[in-house]
Order: sequence, then C-alpha cells, then structure tokens
Amino acid sequence: MSDRDNSEELPFIRPAVRAMTGYTPGEQPRGGQVIKLNTNENPYPPSPRVLEAMADAAERVRLYPDPLATELREQAAALYGIGADQILAGNGSDEILMILLRACIDQGDVVAYPVPTYSLYDTLVQICGGVVRTVPFPADFALPVDELVALQARVTFVCNPNAPSGTATPLPVLRALAARLRGLLVIDEAYGEFGSVAALELIAEHRNVIVVRSFSKSFSLAGLRIGLGFAQPQVIHELLKVKDSYNLNRVSIAGAAAALADVDWMRANVERIRATRERLRQGLLELGYGVLPSETNFVLARRPGEDQRPIYEALRTRGILVRHFAIPDLYDALRITVGTDEEIDALLAALAEIVADPALPRPAGEP
Amino acid sequence: MSDRDNSEELPFIRPAVRAMTGYTPGEQPRGGQVIKLNTNENPYPPSPRVLEAMADAAERVRLYPDPLATELREQAAALYGIGADQILAGNGSDEILMILLRACIDQGDVVAYPVPTYSLYDTLVQICGGVVRTVPFPADFALPVDELVALQARVTFVCNPNAPSGTATPLPVLRALAARLRGLLVIDEAYGEFGSVAALELIAEHRNVIVVRSFSKSFSLAGLRIGLGFAQPQVIHELLKVKDSYNLNRVSIAGAAAALADVDWMRANVERIRATRERLRQGLLELGYGVLPSETNFVLARRPGEDQRPIYEALRTRGILVRHFAIPDLYDALRITVGTDEEIDALLAALAEIVADPALPRPAGEP
Repeated sequence: MSDRDNSEELPFIRPAVRAMTGYTPGEQPRGGQVIKLNTNENPYPPSPRVLEAMADAAERVRLYPDPLATELREQAAALYGIGADQILAGNGSDEILMILLRACIDQGDVVAYPVPTYSLYDTLVQICGGVVRTVPFPADFALPVDELVALQARVTFVCNPNAPSGTATPLPVLRALAARLRGLLVIDEAYGEFGSVAALELIAEHRNVIVVRSFSKSFSLAGLRIGLGFAQPQVIHELLKVKDSYNLNRVSIAGAAAALADVDWMRANVERIRATRERLRQGLLELGYGVLPSETNFVLARRPGEDQRPIYEALRTRGILVRHFAIPDLYDALRITVGTDEEIDALLAALAEIVADPALPRPAGEP
Repeated sequence: MSDRDNSEELPFIRPAVRAMTGYTPGEQPRGGQVIKLNTNENPYPPSPRVLEAMADAAERVRLYPDPLATELREQAAALYGIGADQILAGNGSDEILMILLRACIDQGDVVAYPVPTYSLYDTLVQICGGVVRTVPFPADFALPVDELVALQARVTFVCNPNAPSGTATPLPVLRALAARLRGLLVIDEAYGEFGSVAALELIAEHRNVIVVRSFSKSFSLAGLRIGLGFAQPQVIHELLKVKDSYNLNRVSIAGAAAALADVDWMRANVERIRATRERLRQGLLELGYGVLPSETNFVLARRPGEDQRPIYEALRTRGILVRHFAIPDLYDALRITVGTDEEIDALLAALAEIVADPALPRPAGEP
C-alpha cells in the first residue's frame, strides 16, 4: 500500500507537498553517552542569567506572551545600536527564513543561492511554491557574485559564514552584491559570532538586505529556538504581518533577552571554541585531511575522492557523532562540530585509529 | 511618507502581503494591576509538575530539541488512546492551523467557515493566498451545514465550541458534515475541554478530519505555546513535511508532556471555571444582557442594538479588560473571560454601576 499514489485518498493535500520528502534534521539521540559533534551545538552552557530569567518567566506561563517580543527586541536594539522596529524575533532563525519567504514568494518566484549550503533552504522554498536556482561554489568557496546577480532572484540566500564549508565572504563583496540585486538579499549569519564578518551595517545602506542570526550556536540556546532578523523598518513591518501571532513563548523571550544582557558570557565561550577549532584543524591536517579555514563552530574535513561514510560509521560505533552528507558534493567530507577540548581529543584519537585501519575500504567512489 | 505605496521600494514583498493589515491579538498589558478577562486565559496556574519539568528541560537548553516532540506525542497518545503517528505537535494551535493551510492551500484554493468565528482564520488564509468563503451563523449559532457542504472548500474550519459565541455543534452534525465534504474538515477544539463535545473519535472514521486542540486555555499554558493536531497517520505524515524543522523548544515539549501526565489538575481547574461561568451568566442576565449557553471559558454578553464600546471603555478605566470587537456582527456584545470568582464579582459590580449610569450613550447605532 505504501507506494500507492495517495492523491485519491488525500485530495486536499497540495501536489507539491505530496511530492516532497521533507527536511531531515541532524540526529538527536534520546539518551546514552555520546560525544555529539553532529549538529553544531555549543559545548558550553548558556549564561546562568538565562536560566534565572526562564524560571522567572515560567511563573507567568498561564498568560499569553507578548506577540511582538518587545523585551527581547529592545534588548537587541540597545546592544546592536539600532531601533527595535528594525528587528524581527523568530522561533529559531529557521522561522525567520520561513517568514521572509512567506512574505516574498508567490508560486513560481525564483530563490537563488550558492551550493553546497544549508540544505533547509531547499525545503523552505519547496513549501512556498518557489523555484530554486542554485549556483555552484568554486573549490575555494569564493562567492559566485556575477552568477547570483545574473539570476536576479526574488530572494537570494547567502549563508555567511557558509555551512557546511565554514568559509566566509568579506563584507565588501556582500555590499556589492546587495547593490546589484533588485530582490531581497538574505545574509544568514547563524554562525556569524564565530567569524570575522558581520553584515549588520548593510541594512542601513540597502533596503533589500536582511541579516538573520541565531541563538542556537554562539549563545548555547539551540534548545530554546531563538533567531533575530535585522532590516529596515518598512521591511520588518511587512514580515510581522505573516508571522504566527504568538510565535515566541514567554520563556524563550525572557531567556533570549537575558542572553543578550550577558553578551560577555557568550563571547568568552566563542573565544574558547575558536581556540579549540584551531587545535581540531591542526589535528585533522596531521591525519591527512584537507581543512578549509573555518569561521564557524565546525570544520569541514575532506579526503578528496574518499567516501567518508565508513569513517562516519566507525566513529559512530565508538560513540562519536559527526555529520556526513551522502551527496556528490560532500560525500568525501565530514562536518565536525567544535566541542570541548576533551571531546576533540577523543575524536582525534578515534579518528587516528580508524584511518590507520587497513580494513577500511578506500578510495571509494561516489555513493 | 507613510501612505505612499511602497511597491516600488519593496518590490520583493508579495502584493498580497503588502495589501494585508495583519492580525491584531488581544491586548497584553506589560505590567500594572488589571483584571484580565480579554484573552481567555485560565485564571489558575498549571500543575506544579509542569514547572518542574520545564526547569529540568532548561538544564539541557544548549542542545537542539527533538524535532518530532516524541515525548509529548507519546504522552498524548497514551492519554487519548491513539497512536503517536496520529498526532502533530505545534507552537500553539495557531501553528497547527498554519501548517495545515500550508500543506493544503495553493493560490486561489477556497477555505470556508461560518462567521463570526476566530478571526485569525482570515489572516492565515490571506497569507497562504487562499480565498475565504464565509457562511453566516444564524442567531442561535446552529452550524449552517448545507451551506458549507455546497461550497466544497479545500479546507473547512469549524471552531467548536465556537469563539466568540461560546456555543457548540453536536457530534452527529460534525460527523454528517465530514461525510459530505471532500476537502479537509478542521475541527478547532481550542475550547473543547470546557464543553460537552469532543470530536476525536471522528478521525478514525474520516480521513479528511483533523481535530486541533490548544494548551492555552484548559491547561493554563497560553504563555508556552502548545497545540496538538489529531488525524490519520497519512495526513500527519504530509503535515510534518511542512512544519518548521524544530518548531517546539525543549521547555515547551517537557512542560506540555508534564501537563498531560497530570491531566486531573487541568480537569479540576475546568470544573471550577464551569461553576464560575454559570455565576457570571446569571449575573449578566440580571443586568439585562442576553447570554447564550457557553461551552467555553468565556461568555458572549449582548445588548441587541446597543454599542458596547462605551461599556468596554468604562470597564477599562476601572482596570478591567474584556474584549469588544468593532465589527457589525458583534458591536453590541462583550466577550468576557471566566476568571476567578473574585474577578467575576468585581466585573459584575463594575458593570452594574456602569449600566446604571444615565450618562452612557445608548442605544447607539452600528459603529
């Protein structure tokens, strides 16, 4: 029965949705002792002030939250030196991405982005009935600006720093791209705090720029689902119309505002992760992996032409989760989150054993 | 500048969105002492086990949540005697409504519902590019079944019990409607626990039925944003494809699961509210209001032909918030949430003073 076309049974579901497979998030083990380097979480806890604020907000959980998350937006406005009316708060930066597509994309409108990049973009555009046009990154992951400009998409995504390469496009390149696009340029800075480029200043110059940030990585709040979008007030005004009316709960709003109020805590964690990232990179280079300079809290480790699925599996057997993407662009790479020093030591030791094992099949062809 | 058409300035925003005004949620005062009877919150706190579970989950907030909210869905499955694969968890029942429209509505598809009802439906359909077809309720709020069947919409909403009337359609009527519709029938039971009708059993009989419930009212968790959708597994499978990948945070999942584990706490609160509701109704009748029998945690109090805006304002001046809708169908009514006995005593006393005041303009025409 399962391969039967269910269009007769579910005539009310859009054909485009029936044809979708849906997005597959990274694995979230429900328990047990694992070293979790697969979904780019922060290995360090959030500021204690976050947990205090969450507990305090929980006392009023019978009441609806503020639909505009004013407390959070005002805190962000003060920190970043802009107006609260230039800020949209979302249930994770994923929701910000969904909101902006919902506001911009009519059936058949084009959404463009360089690939490989964050694979959720594909799913979100499908949901909105848009048409995806991708441009391949070159080997050094320099942004293919002319090709993106030529597409003049309704919405152009640039994940910066990019996942899963870890590389960043410099600000002048982004500025030039914004000036040459008529559509919306989305600069997705989910990993921005770990790098050297921040594009927030572009929103003052370009009405077609929105910068999107996440609290999941740098602020150690993946489990709280908080993202912010920054753009000119007129753009934010339109986006607010299509967000869910109460998209953030009381606990999230309070926790995220407290995280911003203690931004030094986050910055100290980021410094530790940057130091460990360099150790991880050196260790991987010594094991014969190619590693691009990373501006994120993960590295992409590559052995050109060698399928890394067996390595991924062998690490998994040892209780270490990393990410492997079974696609032609990335089958010979592993994406490894920067954990604590101890976690990275354990990873490198396991990897040294595994790559020395002559029983491993290599070089393997594409999957 | 503000009345200038910004289509030139924001060419990337969909024309349909530029034309929207957006949904206006009920007022959420940011502080001060008010008697808040305007947004149908529960006056009693949630089970202490909810707060314990939330605090416990907050300890792991640096990790992503389970994208499928398995703990919550399994708890609900056990309580309601169905499979977890028949349950979708959402960021409030509002998100469930958005998800199902996103899965069902292509540009121009028809969505039907009787009015007056929950006004968010209008906004959600606009966002999805659907076409709204409404059918007026008669004065006694009996469901206009034949008219809804005649429309054969892609999606038909029935808010049951209905907001803002508080009235409920009996189960046999809903069953007959489901059998006569080819599209999806959404039975929105946001207020279901306060009434006498539950339609969950219809999902076993009809693949085109989804029942939607909220934790905002009966479970005292408006601030946590939790809703559930119940349908056959094939329908849930399609809806999961279009939800945000991590739509519920760790704290929400844990808190909602704990609320279901202590369902007796909720039921005791519901009993108290039902008793106060009857006192409120009697008091309003004595003051000359017409009040339909309510199966919710609010009542709709009407003085036919008399604009209730001045009464709303006078109550507000006394620190009592109720809801007034400035639309032709409802201008002569107030929607009053059932608070504690003390709150309702204060409301009735204030209302008695206000309606006795000869300075009040009445009867007023339509707004």
